[in-house]
Amino acid sequence: MSKRIKISPLAPKGGFPSLPIVRGVTFSACASGVKYKDRTDTMLATISPLSSVAGVFTRSSTRSSAVLDCQDKLGTLPKNNSGFAFMVNSGNANAFTGKDGDLSVKKLVKALSNSLNLPEINIFTSSTGVIGELLPVEKLINAIPYLKTSLSADSIASAAKAIMTTDTFPKGAGVTVVIEDKEVNICGIAKGSGMIAPDMATMLVYIFTDANISQNLLQKVISQLVKETFNCITVDSDTSTSDTLLVAATGQAKITPIVSGKSSSYKIFKGGLKEVMLNLCHQVVKDGEGATKFLEVAVSGGNRKKDSHSVALSIANSPLVKTALAGEDPNWGRIIMAIGKSGAQVERDKISIYFGDILVAENGWVSPNYNEKEAAKYMKNQELVFYVDLGLGSCKSTVWTCDLTHSYISINADYRS
Amino acid sequence: MSKRIKISPLAPKGGFPSLPIVRGVTFSACASGVKYKDRTDTMLATISPLSSVAGVFTRSSTRSSAVLDCQDKLGTLPKNNSGFAFMVNSGNANAFTGKDGDLSVKKLVKALSNSLNLPEINIFTSSTGVIGELLPVEKLINAIPYLKTSLSADSIASAAKAIMTTDTFPKGAGVTVVIEDKEVNICGIAKGSGMIAPDMATMLVYIFTDANISQNLLQKVISQLVKETFNCITVDSDTSTSDTLLVAATGQAKITPIVSGKSSSYKIFKGGLKEVMLNLCHQVVKDGEGATKFLEVAVSGGNRKKDSHSVALSIANSPLVKTALAGEDPNWGRIIMAIGKSGAQVERDKISIYFGDILVAENGWVSPNYNEKEAAKYMKNQELVFYVDLGLGSCKSTVWTCDLTHSYISINADYRS
Repeated sequence: MSKRIKISPLAPKGGFPSLPIVRGVTFSACASGVKYKDRTDTMLATISPLSSVAGVFTRSSTRSSAVLDCQDKLGTLPKNNSGFAFMVNSGNANAFTGKDGDLSVKKLVKALSNSLNLPEINIFTSSTGVIGELLPVEKLINAIPYLKTSLSADSIASAAKAIMTTDTFPKGAGVTVVIEDKEVNICGIAKGSGMIAPDMATMLVYIFTDANISQNLLQKVISQLVKETFNCITVDSDTSTSDTLLVAATGQAKITPIVSGKSSSYKIFKGGLKEVMLNLCHQVVKDGEGATKFLEVAVSGGNRKKDSHSVALSIANSPLVKTALAGEDPNWGRIIMAIGKSGAQVERDKISIYFGDILVAENGWVSPNYNEKEAAKYMKNQELVFYVDLGLGSCKSTVWTCDLTHSYISINADYRS
Repeated sequence: MSKRIKISPLAPKGGFPSLPIVRGVTFSACASGVKYKDRTDTMLATISPLSSVAGVFTRSSTRSSAVLDCQDKLGTLPKNNSGFAFMVNSGNANAFTGKDGDLSVKKLVKALSNSLNLPEINIFTSSTGVIGELLPVEKLINAIPYLKTSLSADSIASAAKAIMTTDTFPKGAGVTVVIEDKEVNICGIAKGSGMIAPDMATMLVYIFTDANISQNLLQKVISQLVKETFNCITVDSDTSTSDTLLVAATGQAKITPIVSGKSSSYKIFKGGLKEVMLNLCHQVVKDGEGATKFLEVAVSGGNRKKDSHSVALSIANSPLVKTALAGEDPNWGRIIMAIGKSGAQVERDKISIYFGDILVAENGWVSPNYNEKEAAKYMKNQELVFYVDLGLGSCKSTVWTCDLTHSYISINADYRS
C-alpha cells in the first residue's frame, strides 16, 4: 500500500486551507472502525433549525441505499424544521447490499434521530468505500455518543479527513461574500480520487453556508452550478454508485432571505458558491488516481451546447489523449480522433486546436506556423489548457481532467481490493 | 521500440492460417517506403470483372480522405463492371490533411486506373498510420508497376503483413462452405491493435469470396454482420478516423446468383461470412495494445436490445473492470458500477452476474454460495466470460474486449509518436 500514501503532486500547496466559520454548523469526526485501522472514518455535521437543505446525486441505476434514502427525503423536507444532521462514513459504500443495505440506513437514521432529537426525515447519511459488503452499522451507531459530545464549529478539517478513502489529501474550500454589508460564509469539503477509486470509493461533497436562502432556490442554484462544476470533471469516465452533493444554508448571517433568482443578493451568493464548487471539483481531479497533470479542455464554437460538451468530454475521457498527456507528447492527432468520435456536429475544415496559446491546427490540417518543439515544451507544464474552437456557433463548454499514468494501473490492477 | 516486437500472448498458435484460394482475386505487397524501414507497407488486391463490392466505414466526423472517397463510390457502382482494385498502405493515415489529403487520394486512384485499365470509380484505397502528415503519394504511385507484375492468387498472407502498423501478428481467417454442391471460399484479412494504436493506426478489414451474390445483398449482409462482430469489440473505447471494411464477391464459384435473403444459399453464405468476421474481430482484440487477457461480456435479459448492448459495452469499456481483469481480481463491484452507469433500464434486485459458471451476485447482493477463492482462480484464465442477466426481458448482446495493462500505458505514453 506504500504507493498510495504519497500525496498527489497536484495537491494545493500549504495543506488544508483555513476556512471561515459557518454559523449554525458544527462538526465532529472519529474512528468507528468500519474498515480502516489507525485513522478516522466517520464524520457528523449538525445544522441549526430553520435551515434549507438541497442536494444532487449520482444518476447510476445501481446507486446505494444511502443515496436512495437521501433522494426520497429531499423532496418532502418541512419548512419549519428543527435542524438537520449529515453523517458520513468511509471504508464501506453500502451499495449493492440488497434489502439488508436498505435496513442498515434505516437503523442508522433511527439511532441518530433518537440521539440528536431530530425527525428521521431531517437526517442524511452517506457511505463510501467498498461495495457489496454489508455495512457494520452497529459500529457507526456505537460512535454516535462520542460524535455528539465532540461537535464544534471549527472542526471542518477533521470532517474532511474522515471521509477520505484513497484520496491523498483532504479537500476543502471556502469564501466569504458580502451581502447587505454582512459577511456570508460558504465552505465545502469533498472526497474523491476521481469519479472512482480502487474500492468504488466515490465522490462526496458537503457545502455549508450561513446565507438565508429558500429551499427551492437553494436546490435550483445547486442543480445549475453542478452542471458547470462537478459534472464537468472526469478522471476515468467511470461513474460511482454513491456520488452525493449536499448543501445546507443556516440563515444565521442575518441577511434578508434570498427568495428571488433575480436579486443581487442571489447573484453574489451564486458567485461565491460557484467559486467553492469549482475549487473543490478541481481538487478532486488533482487527486485523480495516479494524476501528474491537470488539464482544462475548453471547447467553443459549437452549434449546440451538447456539441461543445460532448467534444470536451470525448477529449477529456480519451485514453489516448490522457496517455499522450502523461507522456508529454503533443499528439494533436489524438484530439482530432476524439473530436471525430464524439458524435457532435463538426466540420473538419472549421476546427481550430490550441495548446495554451499555440495554434496547432486549422483549415483541416496542421497550422503552417506550428512548431512541434514549442508544443513539446508546453506539454511539460503541470497545468495545461487544450482549447478547441469548432467554428460553427457560439456554444461553449469546459471540462477538467488529469493524465492516465502507470500509477492508475498500479492502484487499480496491482493491489487486491 | 523493443517492447512492441513481442507477439501478443493471445495470438493464435501456429501463425498465419493456411487459407483457401478465392477464385478471381490476386494479391501483391511491397515496401514502398511511406514510413517504415525494412518491411512491407503496401498491398494491392485485384478483383475480377462482374464482381460485387460492399463496405462499412467509421462514423467518425473527422474520417480520412480515403474513407470519404470509398463511401462516395460505393453508392454508385456499375453492375456490369470490369473488376475492382483495393490498394492499402500502412505508416500514414492521410487523415486531417486538408484539401491536399483529398488530392493525394485522387492522384493515387488516377494512377491505379491508368495502370490497371479500370475506371476510377472501381478503385478503393485505404491508408493507416500517423494522422496529420501529408501522404507521400508519389512513393505509392512509384510502387504500382512492381505491385502489378507480382500479383498472385496465393499471396494473401503477404498482403495481411503489409497492412500492419503496431499489430504484433498478421490476421487472417477463411472458411469453405458448400452451396449447390460447389465449394465457396471466404477469406479475410484485418489489421488493428484495437480501435486505435500509438499513431492512430486503426482497424482495416478486407474480405474476399468467390460466391456469386448481388451488390445489394452483399451490402445488406455485411451491414448486418458488422453489428454482431466488428461493432462488438473494444480495446479502449477510442474510435479511429480510418476504420474500413470492404468485401468483394467474384462469383467465380459458379453457383446460381444469390439474390434473395431468404434462400438457403444466402443462409449458408451468411454463416460462413460470420465465422470469418468473428474470427478476425477476435484476433483484433487479442492483439489489443498490451492485452494479456481476452474477455467476452455476454448480457441477456434486457428489455430492449439497446439496454443489453449498452450494459455490455459499459462493462467492456470500463477502465476499472479492465484493470481488475489485468490484476486477476474478481472485483464484481466494478461490474455493478458499470451496469449502473450504462444508462440502461435495470432493476437492482433482478441482476445476476456470473464469472464463467460461477454465480457471483443475485437478488441485489452477493450470492450466498459465492466463494471468492474459486472466483480468484477463475480470473487466472487467459480467456474469460463475464455473464450478466438483467432479468427483465429477452434481449441479448455480446461484446469482446481485453484487459488494461501497464503495457498499454507504455505503448501510448512512453514512446513519442
